[in-house]
Amino acid sequence: MKTQTLPQLRGEMTRRAILAEGERVFAELGYDRARLEDVAQGVGIRRPSIVHHFAGKQELYDAVEADIYASLHACSRAALDADLAPLDQLLALLDAWLDLMVARPTAARIVQRLVADVSPRHGNPVHFSELALVDLEAVVDRGVRTGAFRPINIMQVVNGVAASTLFYVCNGRQIGSSRTYDPADPKTLAEFRALIHRIAKAAVSAE
Amino acid sequence: MKTQTLPQLRGEMTRRAILAEGERVFAELGYDRARLEDVAQGVGIRRPSIVHHFAGKQELYDAVEADIYASLHACSRAALDADLAPLDQLLALLDAWLDLMVARPTAARIVQRLVADVSPRHGNPVHFSELALVDLEAVVDRGVRTGAFRPINIMQVVNGVAASTLFYVCNGRQIGSSRTYDPADPKTLAEFRALIHRIAKAAVSAE
Repeated sequence: MKTQTLPQLRGEMTRRAILAEGERVFAELGYDRARLEDVAQGVGIRRPSIVHHFAGKQELYDAVEADIYASLHACSRAALDADLAPLDQLLALLDAWLDLMVARPTAARIVQRLVADVSPRHGNPVHFSELALVDLEAVVDRGVRTGAFRPINIMQVVNGVAASTLFYVCNGRQIGSSRTYDPADPKTLAEFRALIHRIAKAAVSAE
Repeated sequence: MKTQTLPQLRGEMTRRAILAEGERVFAELGYDRARLEDVAQGVGIRRPSIVHHFAGKQELYDAVEADIYASLHACSRAALDADLAPLDQLLALLDAWLDLMVARPTAARIVQRLVADVSPRHGNPVHFSELALVDLEAVVDRGVRTGAFRPINIMQVVNGVAASTLFYVCNGRQIGSSRTYDPADPKTLAEFRALIHRIAKAAVSAE
């Protein structure tokens, strides 16, 4: 590993702070309403300092989205352990994604919005998400190939199973005061995790 | 029923055309980017003619959202048939919502976006959705009360089961060319409906 100079380290820290604040602002306001000025203010720097790291709003948004999917991909590693049975791989992958989204609700909101509106992705909606979709695909493919799963399409698993996690994380405070919950509350989270496991098993089981 | 005069009928037709075009524009562009000018152009009228029916963008959006949830509520009636067993009620309700969303993908996109971003709803995110949530709640409550379902929270059913339909309708053309599907294709829809039934049963069954 190359040793970084102090200015390089400071530059890297600033870049990370901009990225984190960018994720927060894009999650809260959406791509259209988010402004680089809001991000700069949140970080405590001036707008030109952002442009030193990210050429513009689109570039910052792209970096935020790339970082979310890279994180999903990174936390999928345990699930891809070839020693696990296909169903255990699938549950491990869903657990990892659930834990990531609960810990990082800004990411859940950005992915959720991307399903409603792909405009920030222009011609290639899976430019960044492909990385995480391929992980899920590998697990489903192996299950189907080995006969552990019924022949099920990847999109059935994406829409029918993985989607729930985004709703769970985003919906906590916006479905009316009588239905409010904290997605990070251990008991609530354990209940939802058990539900995801039930649903995943029902979706892929040969029955 | 009161007979309408010709001008009244024309006014009502214009109002409905504005509402339908508004739903299309809000679905495609989202609340922030949508402009009354776009809606007027789509209907083939001038902007002031819209303002005659809807005072502004917020009012038109509210009418669109109210109409979506009123439609969900209307198509839930069959499901609320008290002669059906709780599980059949739940499946009938989910079928009705799926069929509505497949036939009206603009509505699916608007509800999907509402989960990511409640800002157009200001202080009361369930101002309109309450109407449909209460239908689902009634079915789940009856199932739990009669012991047909395990004790399950309404939000588990919303997030774990009903959410899938929105993803199914919205994701058809945006998860990469190799994963493209037509949500309205009869075979694809039948497969997804079977999945929703599997998932719903797994979610509520006492096991």
